[in-house]
Amino acid sequence: MAKRLGRQTVELERPVSIVSHAAVGGKKEGEGPLKRYFDHLTDDDTFGEKSWEKAECRMQRLALQIALEKWGGGEEALDLLLAGDLLNQCISSSFAARESQVPFLGLYGACSTMGESVALAALLLDGGSAQTAAAVTSSHFCTAERQYRTPLAYGGQRAPTAQWTATAAGCALLSAQGRGPRVTHVTVGKIVDKGIKDANNMGAAMAPAASDTLCAHFRETGRDPSYYDLVATGDLGKLGREILLELTRSEGYDLSGCHNDCGLLLYDLQKQDVHCGGSGCGCAAGVLNGYLLRQMEEGTLRRVLFCPTGALLSPTSTQQGESIPSIAHAVSIEV
Amino acid sequence: MAKRLGRQTVELERPVSIVSHAAVGGKKEGEGPLKRYFDHLTDDDTFGEKSWEKAECRMQRLALQIALEKWGGGEEALDLLLAGDLLNQCISSSFAARESQVPFLGLYGACSTMGESVALAALLLDGGSAQTAAAVTSSHFCTAERQYRTPLAYGGQRAPTAQWTATAAGCALLSAQGRGPRVTHVTVGKIVDKGIKDANNMGAAMAPAASDTLCAHFRETGRDPSYYDLVATGDLGKLGREILLELTRSEGYDLSGCHNDCGLLLYDLQKQDVHCGGSGCGCAAGVLNGYLLRQMEEGTLRRVLFCPTGALLSPTSTQQGESIPSIAHAVSIEV
Repeated sequence: MAKRLGRQTVELERPVSIVSHAAVGGKKEGEGPLKRYFDHLTDDDTFGEKSWEKAECRMQRLALQIALEKWGGGEEALDLLLAGDLLNQCISSSFAARESQVPFLGLYGACSTMGESVALAALLLDGGSAQTAAAVTSSHFCTAERQYRTPLAYGGQRAPTAQWTATAAGCALLSAQGRGPRVTHVTVGKIVDKGIKDANNMGAAMAPAASDTLCAHFRETGRDPSYYDLVATGDLGKLGREILLELTRSEGYDLSGCHNDCGLLLYDLQKQDVHCGGSGCGCAAGVLNGYLLRQMEEGTLRRVLFCPTGALLSPTSTQQGESIPSIAHAVSIEV
Repeated sequence: MAKRLGRQTVELERPVSIVSHAAVGGKKEGEGPLKRYFDHLTDDDTFGEKSWEKAECRMQRLALQIALEKWGGGEEALDLLLAGDLLNQCISSSFAARESQVPFLGLYGACSTMGESVALAALLLDGGSAQTAAAVTSSHFCTAERQYRTPLAYGGQRAPTAQWTATAAGCALLSAQGRGPRVTHVTVGKIVDKGIKDANNMGAAMAPAASDTLCAHFRETGRDPSYYDLVATGDLGKLGREILLELTRSEGYDLSGCHNDCGLLLYDLQKQDVHCGGSGCGCAAGVLNGYLLRQMEEGTLRRVLFCPTGALLSPTSTQQGESIPSIAHAVSIEV
């Protein structure tokens, strides 16, 4: 049975491993520094489909298929599929999953979903509810722009604090048996809202949530940030990262030597015109399941604290003048 | 550790009880046959707020507050809050939860969310990840109409197969200690899509998902439907119920003597102009946390299989000509 170290952090008792993983990316992601870590890249962001939404759906299916192929098992070996995305009613996930026969749990955590899905999968495996589970999530630049901001054809100018929604999907397969990087701890986030209302400055809205969850993790585990080779947030971007470092420092935790952000890793900020960095569920999903887990398997990284953040706003809440509630979930992964 | 009876069904090992529960409803719900089972009813569906969305958010907060008061504990005693709703980006849940300090897991299962949240809470408690968890969900007629169909002022005519989205919220508090009806089994649903495209006929779209999950539950537990005093689906309505009875009969399970649907229980179909019955996350949530759990505490019902269904469509998917993927999660509750 899991051991609760505090209100938010659980230490797993069983060896839950990430036995396979896959990352799928679009054109811009294939032009970035992590190009060689993706399992599947395309020059055609439609993925051969008739709508951007169907393309995103296809990316989720591809990520799951590739992860299964690399693992050597079929869908029939999966006990659970946990998935979510940014679209209204999470249609990328539901429509992707309708082609499978795997018991399904739909999640909504905005860009924290890769953290939420891996965290929940790990806890359920630890508790014996399942032997093998897949955690899948995605985002697509064009579906997100259409839904959250304006259709691309409108040609609106982007604010300097804006981030670029990644066209990417990731899948992690977790098993209570088998080899791979182990999930050792999970810290479930609380909703934090410091009153930021600018939907073009997500990093600032989400940084306090990341700080809250990371500080809870360090406090409840008794660990210093330096315990980890890397503390990886999901998509705080350049500005959000600076705020995070300041907030955690004021709580007594110095992340400066061990922190990076998936939104800064995914693109070349000098050359790729992504302003403050990458964002979207697919950003953390692509970087975890492409880059980070491979670095762990190769031994370059041994201890990673993966902590993606989500901005839980909607166009309706923004139109109603609301601020942006945010959340972050942390998962400790070790080899 | 939980015992897996099959691919979808888990038998809990620890005694996980529903130690408190609360139901909040609007004007129409207070005029229906379950009036006396609601903990809070209003004549003003705005709940004193400036928008329907804020009103729905307030309903979730009220449901949680009342459940906590009835239990006699504060939010600080909760280890987890699992919540979801129908709105884009689940804003009713996130905005309701930002006023609390409870670790939060956002879910999306459309109208199956009360089932998904109780199921997940029970599994996590069984596995030791938490000692006490709250499962909360809601829907509001006006937010749903605005988002899925047309603004109310448009005055569109409703199809005969249409259902009425409940203005209701429900909260169940689960604990690994304490007294109350016990969650004994959880059956996680798969996504089922039989090609129904009519968003005004959700019952027909969701009935196959309910049948799939219920038959899996009976098969994997070895139980006959007659084991239960009541098998309660969430919001299949009149037409969906007929389809469900036919589908399960063809699989060898006769539900006719023990089945009812929360959408048929919540309103008086003769007098309340709700066409095929109630729907929305709040329908199953209100009926479970108001009526069903009280009937169990009073001894009128001893064994209930609660199995709400969700239609995982969005206006975008409907506009793109897609059919409606559906899901149902079943939770066995006994006193």
